Amino acid sequence: MSQSQINLYYKNVMADVIGAEHGITKKQLDEQLEKLPEKLQEMRSNPELKMKEEAYRKLPHDTETAKQIKDLVAELKSRCENLVVLGIGGSALGNIALQTALKPYMHNIDDKSRIGPRLFVFDNIDPNQLGSFLDWVDDKLDKTIFNVISKLGQTAETISQFMIIRQLLLRKFGLEGYKDRIIVTTDVKEGTLRTISKEENLHCLEIPQCVGGRFSVLSAVGLFSAAMCGVDIDSLLKGARDMDARVSCEDFNKNPAAINAAINYHYYNHGKKISVMMPYSYALKDLADWYRQLWAESLGKAEDREGNEVHIGPTPVKALGTTDQHSQVQLYREGPNDKLFTFLQVSNFDRDLKIGPAPDCAPELEFLAGKDLSTLLNSEKKATEYALLQNKDPGSTEQPYLTKHPCLTVLFDEVNAYTVGQFIYLFEVTTSFVAALFGINPYDQPAVELGKKATFALMGRPGYGKLAQQIKSLTKIDGDFLV
Amino acid sequence: MSQSQINLYYKNVMADVIGAEHGITKKQLDEQLEKLPEKLQEMRSNPELKMKEEAYRKLPHDTETAKQIKDLVAELKSRCENLVVLGIGGSALGNIALQTALKPYMHNIDDKSRIGPRLFVFDNIDPNQLGSFLDWVDDKLDKTIFNVISKLGQTAETISQFMIIRQLLLRKFGLEGYKDRIIVTTDVKEGTLRTISKEENLHCLEIPQCVGGRFSVLSAVGLFSAAMCGVDIDSLLKGARDMDARVSCEDFNKNPAAINAAINYHYYNHGKKISVMMPYSYALKDLADWYRQLWAESLGKAEDREGNEVHIGPTPVKALGTTDQHSQVQLYREGPNDKLFTFLQVSNFDRDLKIGPAPDCAPELEFLAGKDLSTLLNSEKKATEYALLQNKDPGSTEQPYLTKHPCLTVLFDEVNAYTVGQFIYLFEVTTSFVAALFGINPYDQPAVELGKKATFALMGRPGYGKLAQQIKSLTKIDGDFLV
Repeated sequence: MSQSQINLYYKNVMADVIGAEHGITKKQLDEQLEKLPEKLQEMRSNPELKMKEEAYRKLPHDTETAKQIKDLVAELKSRCENLVVLGIGGSALGNIALQTALKPYMHNIDDKSRIGPRLFVFDNIDPNQLGSFLDWVDDKLDKTIFNVISKLGQTAETISQFMIIRQLLLRKFGLEGYKDRIIVTTDVKEGTLRTISKEENLHCLEIPQCVGGRFSVLSAVGLFSAAMCGVDIDSLLKGARDMDARVSCEDFNKNPAAINAAINYHYYNHGKKISVMMPYSYALKDLADWYRQLWAESLGKAEDREGNEVHIGPTPVKALGTTDQHSQVQLYREGPNDKLFTFLQVSNFDRDLKIGPAPDCAPELEFLAGKDLSTLLNSEKKATEYALLQNKDPGSTEQPYLTKHPCLTVLFDEVNAYTVGQFIYLFEVTTSFVAALFGINPYDQPAVELGKKATFALMGRPGYGKLAQQIKSLTKIDGDFLV
Repeated sequence: MSQSQINLYYKNVMADVIGAEHGITKKQLDEQLEKLPEKLQEMRSNPELKMKEEAYRKLPHDTETAKQIKDLVAELKSRCENLVVLGIGGSALGNIALQTALKPYMHNIDDKSRIGPRLFVFDNIDPNQLGSFLDWVDDKLDKTIFNVISKLGQTAETISQFMIIRQLLLRKFGLEGYKDRIIVTTDVKEGTLRTISKEENLHCLEIPQCVGGRFSVLSAVGLFSAAMCGVDIDSLLKGARDMDARVSCEDFNKNPAAINAAINYHYYNHGKKISVMMPYSYALKDLADWYRQLWAESLGKAEDREGNEVHIGPTPVKALGTTDQHSQVQLYREGPNDKLFTFLQVSNFDRDLKIGPAPDCAPELEFLAGKDLSTLLNSEKKATEYALLQNKDPGSTEQPYLTKHPCLTVLFDEVNAYTVGQFIYLFEVTTSFVAALFGINPYDQPAVELGKKATFALMGRPGYGKLAQQIKSLTKIDGDFLV
């Protein structure tokens, strides 16, 4: 197992580098760090919140589940060429992130070199999208397995997909054949999907109680599809465990979650309401999407724990280097200085490509010839960071005027299961720490509930008639405002 | 050709619906619309800006280019099973958006039903990503064509990819075979890629002068790959032309670009600094990404046209319904009220799927059984909009308290080339109109230049030595800040 690390680099948020207006001083950082133990204690004095933190923090230590999953994978492997995850939000984003990070870009297309089944994750209910897939998979259903993931089986999207697939498999293969092709991942005890699984005798993986969707990637939710596709889930969990030791360090000056949380909290309170995560690695791009849910649902809250109306929460934005240099960096550099940037940078790529020679007629390209593509990629990261830190045109004779945008970097020695496990765990614990500083509950999502009820109402679920009327009157198209 | 339309629906931004604190009054909207003609005239009085607006607005009327492209497609079709676009920013986002919108989800994987070649767009320089593709394509290069898109051929990403591919094809096929597999899309006259094309006698498609990358999707930049994959580019252009008529309407109360611009401008100035585009259709998801560049690069500016320092620009965010209901809506509803939402909604889907029956043991799912998936998708859109407009829990006996988040909707009768053409053109012209209201130049991107220079410096391009030193000293890792 590789002992490669991830580290948080925070020099370029400091006032010494980017100036007092947009930077954080050592004193300000120390103040946040000093406040944090008490804030954490306050949060943990609520038994429910304590339990929820402990629940997700236990996951990397649960090697028993990993073993069960590996046994199941060994059993299923030979008869699975396509694995389909039906899930949404926390039941999809982690699966997608692990796949993009740890499998080759061409995994689903390259039949020659693929290890494990193709993986498809449907975290939407678009009939064109799912229909296109069903057309293709129709003559491949024999070797296709569906992993239905929902905590309580009441999520309309996932359960509707399940009802479509269930009907299809029952028609095609009968009851036994259907059962052979479904793996359910659901709550240990409760819920509609648990009931169905018992009644229909489906194979079940467990979502531990008290683990919320967005903190569940290191449970069976994320581990099963990863292991099926050949990801080393032991290394993934080991990475998380090793990060657990680092973020449990009581000297908060040496604790990357504490420093990350303190900086993020400070900047939210100092006008940087937008938090941009920008990996310089295609493999890491969907970790930024996973982070986007973690951050938005955990930290976007109307009320603090005392019930005071606060309406807080940084807006997480995912970007991708170098792609978004040609899309977002114009705004990032010149627009409002309302963003904190977190770059993800990889020191060593698994493989590299050498740039070919310049055509004779284009000597101006000579400087690129023979260089490694990874060198260019990492140079672009530095170039972008420089453009965000720097304020004056470098042609100018003045001293560069350094009062600009705060930039954090998470450095990956390399991208593998071990470092990805570290990253996931670092940001989960950072989220709890930021929530402690905000004084909010990071583990609930009350606002999602009204949307769910409204969907029930519009789909005619009994008992929601009055709400359906209210919604229809508000969302009915009025021709006077249609142009 | 379908005569289906798109329309902008703006009732749910009005103060009458969402209250005076967060809504726009009829009077405020009228004021912006009255100001707009003069602001447009001011912008157009600058000959360069006038020319640049005219240049992109001419594109849908250029049926000659479309004809040439169709002729080229007819010639190449039989020997192209894989089309690879090498481009970034405006040379990639439009191509990706058209593909996602107008081709089946499984296009690249489904060998049975695919019409046209597989399409791959590389808008990054990650060696793992490109390497994975090159492994796969190695024994398929014979039937693979590369479309290299760059206005001036100085973009380090695209030109490096080109140098890799050029070397590969020259080695494998010699000069003639290389030439047969490259289509260059570049400036009519100038630039490195034009020089190379002349010297090596490569087939060239033209980017008209004065058309910037982010306004170029309806030129050869976007049309060639679309036409190769079987998209009806005549309908696409016709949609844009028909929208041209609508956005040229001098009665701005009937002009969707004017109303869209006025509302967006108003909200930026009233605390909604974030602009969320959220399609409820998988097909439309990458149009939101295309929009993200259009908006950020055009409107994110440090200076107005008079040279006053302004640092303005809404931050565009793409979201996807229903997926992001389980990721971002918690923040959108409860967090800071700092966002303007633009939903994209589709009235009629090409195809539909019926939800299967509920298992006997789960009668609580009966309300979904037999319903169309598109009905669920559109109900979720209404449910989310309701949750954003509404403020009190519907269980409460109080009258709903409607002072919440402004929501626009772009209604698509259906998704096809004709409506997608309308959408693209509507948002391009809206961008020019918003820029006129801001008093800025929407056609430049000065900030991207420093990043490019910095990359040149770090890659050792002659003449950039001093800059390289500055960057290195600023981006060098300092162990004191590494945790």
